[in-house]
Amino acid sequence: AAQAKDVKATQRVFIFGKNKSQGDATMKNLLGGKGANLAEMSRIGLSVPPGLTITTDTCAEFHTNGRQLPAGCWEEILAGLRSVEEEMGCRLGDAAAPLLLSVRSGAAVSMPGMMDTVLNLGLNDACAAGLAARSGDERFAYDAYRRFLDMYGDVVMGIPHHLFEEQLERLKAEQRVSEDTALTAADLRTLVARYKEVYKQLGQVFPEDPYEQLRLAIYAVFDSWRSERADVYRAVNGITGLTGTAVNVQAMAFGNMGPTSGTGVCFTRNPSTGERKLYGEYLINAQGEDVVAGIRTPEPIETLERSLPGAFKELLDNCALLEKHYKDMQDIEFTVQEGKLYMLQCRGGKRTGTAAVRIAVELVDEGLVDEDEAVLMVEPGHLDQLLHPQFANEAAYKSDVLGTGLPASPGAAVGQAVFSAEDAEAWRSSGLPVVLVRRETSPEDVKGMYSAEGVLCQLGGMTSHAAVVARGWGKPCITGCADLQVDEHSKVARINGHEIRQGDWISLNGSTGEIVRGKQPLAPPELAGDLGRFMSWVDKRRRLGVLTNADTPEDAAEARKFGAEGIGLCRTEHMFFASEERIATVRRMIVAQTREARLKALADLLPFQRADFEGILRAMAGLPVTIRLLDPPLHEFLPDGEMTEVCEALARDAGVTVDEVYGTIEKLQEVNPMLGFRGCRLGITYPEITEMQVRAMFEAAVRVLAGGSAVQLDVMVPLVGTAAELANQEGLVRRVAEQVMSESGGVRVPYRVGTMIEVPRAALQAGAIAKTAEFFSFGTNDLTQMTFGYSRDDIGKFLPVYLEKGILPYDPFQVLDQEGVGELIRFAVERGRAARPDLKIGICGEQGGEPRTVAFLHEVGLDYVSCSPFRVPIARLAAGQAAVRSQRAAAAAKK
Amino acid sequence: AAQAKDVKATQRVFIFGKNKSQGDATMKNLLGGKGANLAEMSRIGLSVPPGLTITTDTCAEFHTNGRQLPAGCWEEILAGLRSVEEEMGCRLGDAAAPLLLSVRSGAAVSMPGMMDTVLNLGLNDACAAGLAARSGDERFAYDAYRRFLDMYGDVVMGIPHHLFEEQLERLKAEQRVSEDTALTAADLRTLVARYKEVYKQLGQVFPEDPYEQLRLAIYAVFDSWRSERADVYRAVNGITGLTGTAVNVQAMAFGNMGPTSGTGVCFTRNPSTGERKLYGEYLINAQGEDVVAGIRTPEPIETLERSLPGAFKELLDNCALLEKHYKDMQDIEFTVQEGKLYMLQCRGGKRTGTAAVRIAVELVDEGLVDEDEAVLMVEPGHLDQLLHPQFANEAAYKSDVLGTGLPASPGAAVGQAVFSAEDAEAWRSSGLPVVLVRRETSPEDVKGMYSAEGVLCQLGGMTSHAAVVARGWGKPCITGCADLQVDEHSKVARINGHEIRQGDWISLNGSTGEIVRGKQPLAPPELAGDLGRFMSWVDKRRRLGVLTNADTPEDAAEARKFGAEGIGLCRTEHMFFASEERIATVRRMIVAQTREARLKALADLLPFQRADFEGILRAMAGLPVTIRLLDPPLHEFLPDGEMTEVCEALARDAGVTVDEVYGTIEKLQEVNPMLGFRGCRLGITYPEITEMQVRAMFEAAVRVLAGGSAVQLDVMVPLVGTAAELANQEGLVRRVAEQVMSESGGVRVPYRVGTMIEVPRAALQAGAIAKTAEFFSFGTNDLTQMTFGYSRDDIGKFLPVYLEKGILPYDPFQVLDQEGVGELIRFAVERGRAARPDLKIGICGEQGGEPRTVAFLHEVGLDYVSCSPFRVPIARLAAGQAAVRSQRAAAAAKK
Ligand SMILES: [Mg+2]
Ligand SMILES: [Mg+2]
Repeated sequence: AAQAKDVKATQRVFIFGKNKSQGDATMKNLLGGKGANLAEMSRIGLSVPPGLTITTDTCAEFHTNGRQLPAGCWEEILAGLRSVEEEMGCRLGDAAAPLLLSVRSGAAVSMPGMMDTVLNLGLNDACAAGLAARSGDERFAYDAYRRFLDMYGDVVMGIPHHLFEEQLERLKAEQRVSEDTALTAADLRTLVARYKEVYKQLGQVFPEDPYEQLRLAIYAVFDSWRSERADVYRAVNGITGLTGTAVNVQAMAFGNMGPTSGTGVCFTRNPSTGERKLYGEYLINAQGEDVVAGIRTPEPIETLERSLPGAFKELLDNCALLEKHYKDMQDIEFTVQEGKLYMLQCRGGKRTGTAAVRIAVELVDEGLVDEDEAVLMVEPGHLDQLLHPQFANEAAYKSDVLGTGLPASPGAAVGQAVFSAEDAEAWRSSGLPVVLVRRETSPEDVKGMYSAEGVLCQLGGMTSHAAVVARGWGKPCITGCADLQVDEHSKVARINGHEIRQGDWISLNGSTGEIVRGKQPLAPPELAGDLGRFMSWVDKRRRLGVLTNADTPEDAAEARKFGAEGIGLCRTEHMFFASEERIATVRRMIVAQTREARLKALADLLPFQRADFEGILRAMAGLPVTIRLLDPPLHEFLPDGEMTEVCEALARDAGVTVDEVYGTIEKLQEVNPMLGFRGCRLGITYPEITEMQVRAMFEAAVRVLAGGSAVQLDVMVPLVGTAAELANQEGLVRRVAEQVMSESGGVRVPYRVGTMIEVPRAALQAGAIAKTAEFFSFGTNDLTQMTFGYSRDDIGKFLPVYLEKGILPYDPFQVLDQEGVGELIRFAVERGRAARPDLKIGICGEQGGEPRTVAFLHEVGLDYVSCSPFRVPIARLAAGQAAVRSQRAAAAAKK
Repeated sequence: AAQAKDVKATQRVFIFGKNKSQGDATMKNLLGGKGANLAEMSRIGLSVPPGLTITTDTCAEFHTNGRQLPAGCWEEILAGLRSVEEEMGCRLGDAAAPLLLSVRSGAAVSMPGMMDTVLNLGLNDACAAGLAARSGDERFAYDAYRRFLDMYGDVVMGIPHHLFEEQLERLKAEQRVSEDTALTAADLRTLVARYKEVYKQLGQVFPEDPYEQLRLAIYAVFDSWRSERADVYRAVNGITGLTGTAVNVQAMAFGNMGPTSGTGVCFTRNPSTGERKLYGEYLINAQGEDVVAGIRTPEPIETLERSLPGAFKELLDNCALLEKHYKDMQDIEFTVQEGKLYMLQCRGGKRTGTAAVRIAVELVDEGLVDEDEAVLMVEPGHLDQLLHPQFANEAAYKSDVLGTGLPASPGAAVGQAVFSAEDAEAWRSSGLPVVLVRRETSPEDVKGMYSAEGVLCQLGGMTSHAAVVARGWGKPCITGCADLQVDEHSKVARINGHEIRQGDWISLNGSTGEIVRGKQPLAPPELAGDLGRFMSWVDKRRRLGVLTNADTPEDAAEARKFGAEGIGLCRTEHMFFASEERIATVRRMIVAQTREARLKALADLLPFQRADFEGILRAMAGLPVTIRLLDPPLHEFLPDGEMTEVCEALARDAGVTVDEVYGTIEKLQEVNPMLGFRGCRLGITYPEITEMQVRAMFEAAVRVLAGGSAVQLDVMVPLVGTAAELANQEGLVRRVAEQVMSESGGVRVPYRVGTMIEVPRAALQAGAIAKTAEFFSFGTNDLTQMTFGYSRDDIGKFLPVYLEKGILPYDPFQVLDQEGVGELIRFAVERGRAARPDLKIGICGEQGGEPRTVAFLHEVGLDYVSCSPFRVPIARLAAGQAAVRSQRAAAAAKK
């Protein structure tokens, strides 16, 4: 192997097969995931059918060269082929001993169903006859040949699959049989002739020369890398930075050589629950695409144990070997040819959140991985699934269950039925939650699936397209429901005598497979079981604190259950709308025509704010509570409605004239409210507003302290852009704080005064600002708005175009822009800490719970992130993983 | 002197006087401008009355200590006083030989009329009698005493001046005299008694102890540093960073000791025209405040030549000595006491733009300064004055001239008459141009003067408050108009039988002193004479190119006259409104419902754009012309008016339905248009718009080249925030450019593709962006908006508060914010040049013509600035000065 690896720099073809692997698992970028796996499996001694991998770089060269293989590449392929032929004892195009090949794509990142595959390549009239003679099974040979013609036509020549299907159905009708397997060898020969006729009718010629077949198939794989559906998948999944796909050319193993043959897909553990038990499906006398495509519903893997115990035992052994080698649950494709097992493919198995946590915990208990590794095995997105809502009461809807399918992806989905991907997108963008109901799904449906709350398919199994894609996203999905008939054209589905029409509410339980009538009530999720243990490992490792954004005592209590270590952002103004009386008082404050009138309204507002703050401080029991001073533009608090009426009502209520109200409202109108009279600009212009809020905070704190509870109050000034702004408000805060404390007999409230960093200038001036600020909190919503010049409210006009054209890799309001906004954050951290080494620094923008963002912020050296209560566990995990990764990187750097 | 300078570090008092100066001209920060001058004048041997200066730092200490002199300071003052007493041969409070003192403020920067002055300090009943005995002139002694009581009461004790004036007027009425000089010594003794009564009536006691007088006077000077009017002056003039004012205590020289005494103010050259001829005023038998306050109208300086030729000769000699020493025109205050000249004060003289240029040029010709120094002598603001409008035809208004006053500050002003500073501010903020008409002005009026187009005063001379302040700002001003009676209370002025009432239009010719009825037409200024020579020195020195922002061939031609070296910003969309047909076509493009309809409208728009571009390219004859692609949000092009009517009209015109128009308009509505669908976001979403614009540019360029003229076309992409945005548009531009050139038989149009840097992220990502951009142009309007988070349209709500509270030192849309926005500019320059060393970098925001900004941009290393045509000469000068200063700094660093 060492010698085999010693290759020239421009090697484009790598052979694999037992004991002659030129690659290994580390070469994923060059050989693709599938190719690197085949190489690795070969290397560790598994019985992999021999083959060769054409590198991903070759794909890029192919496209750069105007769809030409680079010079010398074809010769390398031929040389590889010679080695395969030697190993298999047969030759491509040799009618006496024909070698059949599979040609598959395989990029560095798994893109299920996206890339094209051709099987049985090498067959032509002569070789089919030869294969029949050699195998002694004419039926098998012509079945392989007609399958090849179908697939090759579809994938390489662009002939729609249904044209071949029609011929198959017509022939079955002529022969009065219902199963494909009932067709005779003679029937299949007829079918071959008819399939060739399909080519001709479309002006195509089927290439009889196997080498030409191979060349065109390789081209087709490379072309599929640039197909629209591949582009969509990459866009939806945020996959960037790949050069192309590899091509894997491999000797075929035949699963359709009779009852002792078959093909299967399995997971080494249950990908839904995580249970340690082989989990999968087997289709007797069939080739792999029958399983994956979901066209025939396969048997559970246990049937193999009964029918071919030897092959099953070998499969179990192989699975154990693989788990030990890869230290993770594996997803395996295999074929049994006349009782002999061939391992076709293996990879880390996609799994649900529940399964991910259970597998990680059990692998630790089994001694296969350590806690660090376990922490890295669960994706933050997995926790998102765990935190997805469940049905409030599964017993309550039992009488509404219409039928049951396969529980392909767990969780509860409730929505209105639609029958096409386009409808799903359209309804969703009108704000309607939908459930997508299909006969089966194909890669063309991915955007529609993404828009749906859940997916229901008549056909398919646990590993069909719909199931795999839905599990990846944590979206509930039910497949293979035999009682369901979907008529996509008429937009209606029938199940056990019930009709589901477009727009009908239905509910899916992806964990049980139940399809339920109507809009069933949902309940928030709970954290329990393995998750508690897992999260304790996470928390032990992370350095970043995880706080939450909460505006009410209830939110605060909820967030503590999810593990929040304090409140990073309490938006006081959200409580202004909590009652009619409150908002009326706020409005009186706004339309006040004199400082006195404003002070009066503020005095009325104070008890409300104090009560809120008291509740929140009490709920957090001494954990830091960061309260932001009034931030939004004042016009946000004015009522909607007809102007005259609004003015009259306000005037009546506030005891001022209609003209005065009108004048005030006019003055508050803004061209760009986002960049207008808001944030600390309010408190600087009307110091009495800040005074009231600070008084409310400190009076609340004094009361909580008097009740024997601890307090850590952090007063946060919003929208600061200059050191002078903060100094102005900080002076005010400290003055009022001292006043309240001395009024309260000298009680000391532990407090800090800090600022949001959400204006680009504040990030640049962080050094000057940190002279006054005791903490920073990045407001990445505003910071992103101003750094890009994007209004969040208006970005909808061009963001879709930007994502589609690849001008932005993702929505920067979801995932922090590390290059631009991130650089400002780096500046602010460096400069802030230089001026005040013990400066506390966090983030309270919405990206604070996004895993990639959390990892970045760990690296930049923040002290904490703050996010919505729901995302707290996700942020904890992302922070733990970031800590493990950077510790590993540091350890690696030491070596 | 060397020994005198060897003082301890905490020295707070510095004495001066012929041959015993402890300070010098370099100590302006510590001694204030006046103190450093007195020290320097003493040092070079001029006959300066001896005295002492208390440092500016002491002022800061005074305020920090809660209005207390620092320990030891009083003793230092007394020690200094001893030295003065020795020199003058008399002593403070010694009735036999009383020393009288002046006490004056003097900060490091001249603040005329702002700080308080006390004269004749040291007088009390005993000393007044002693002074009368010693001088043999009782009238003089009691006149000095009553003046002292008045001034001391006003300045130190806060007793309004008019209360003393009333007593004076009463006494004059009683004695039936009209001139002060007609009052006898006995009258003045009565007046002294009555003045003391004024003190008592207000519950004040006049301190008879001269040391107490001195202490309180020093306190009053320090207090005046913090007065509101001083604050306003500093705010208006952008003066920051000073610690306080110095106090100058100096032996009095008496100008009121009879007909051989007097006091005067003069400039070594004419401050209005620059003519090399002593220019000033002299008031016989008077003290200095009579001249400055403008209460008595003084005689021209030439009268001194006739009355006291010896003193006049000495004055001329002193002036020559001073100009040789200071290498600049000087502003001098002097007193003649019984025929003997005392130089009281000298400083660089304020001058008009015309004078500044002429003086600079003549000083070079006289060999007093070199060209470098000359370039630095003219302030960029001076050119602003030169470029102020003049009357279109001075002959045409001759029949409307109402009267003539002193031409105190040149230029033409046209506005509506107002009679108080408050009215001036109020009218101005309603957008009305005003002329402020006053009896005389005082420091309380500065804000009102700033708001006015020009100032007209009944009283005062060429050096009265109004004249000095107006000249500093380049505002036209007429003073000392004997025919004018101003009744400020009734808001009416009478002049030669004509009434000027509030709101009447009047015109002032500050260069001739003419007061003209009505709204006289103005004409743009011209550059000529000395200015041409001066600007050639400037241009020889500057490294920054100066381009202009121009949207039409006419603007382009105008700007070339002002010396513009190209167009840095051509906003194509400004021409969309040039005709009904154009804007209608633009609107059809906007409401187009299909790509085809949009293409059709764009095709109709193309000939208009092409014609504009052709005109501009031709006008610039091969100088670079930077054309920006469409930038503003599309809704800016929609008509105003009632929605239904607008929609119907648009629908009719564009051949679409009203609903479609309504839908389009709805979609174009934005919450924050500044951060919305604009800039390159338009061209990326609708590539056909960019295509049309680029086609128009290149077709125009081809035509201009065909006409034998040179072309340099720079295509500029607006609002870029990511490298991908620019790459998208750049690809489009190059494709269309190549297409047009090949259609034109392979003509090569020299062109570059670049980008605005106006989004903070673009500045940070400048390295990546410069890989595609051939030039950068900073759009500092948008960059300032986004860096601060200030909407220019909405900043009015808080900017006044921010300026007033000192949170911002100036409006960052006028003067570039060097700390924040400036740092982004530095980043972009560094990173851009690192990626592309020959990157051309400029600025096209409005600050591009502001002198401090230009100096900063020179330092940062920009290649050019671009500003409005009018500001081109100012930018050239600022750039030249920046070059001289940095060359000097470099030379100094080498030493
Ligand atoms: Mg914010
Ligand atoms: Mg702009």
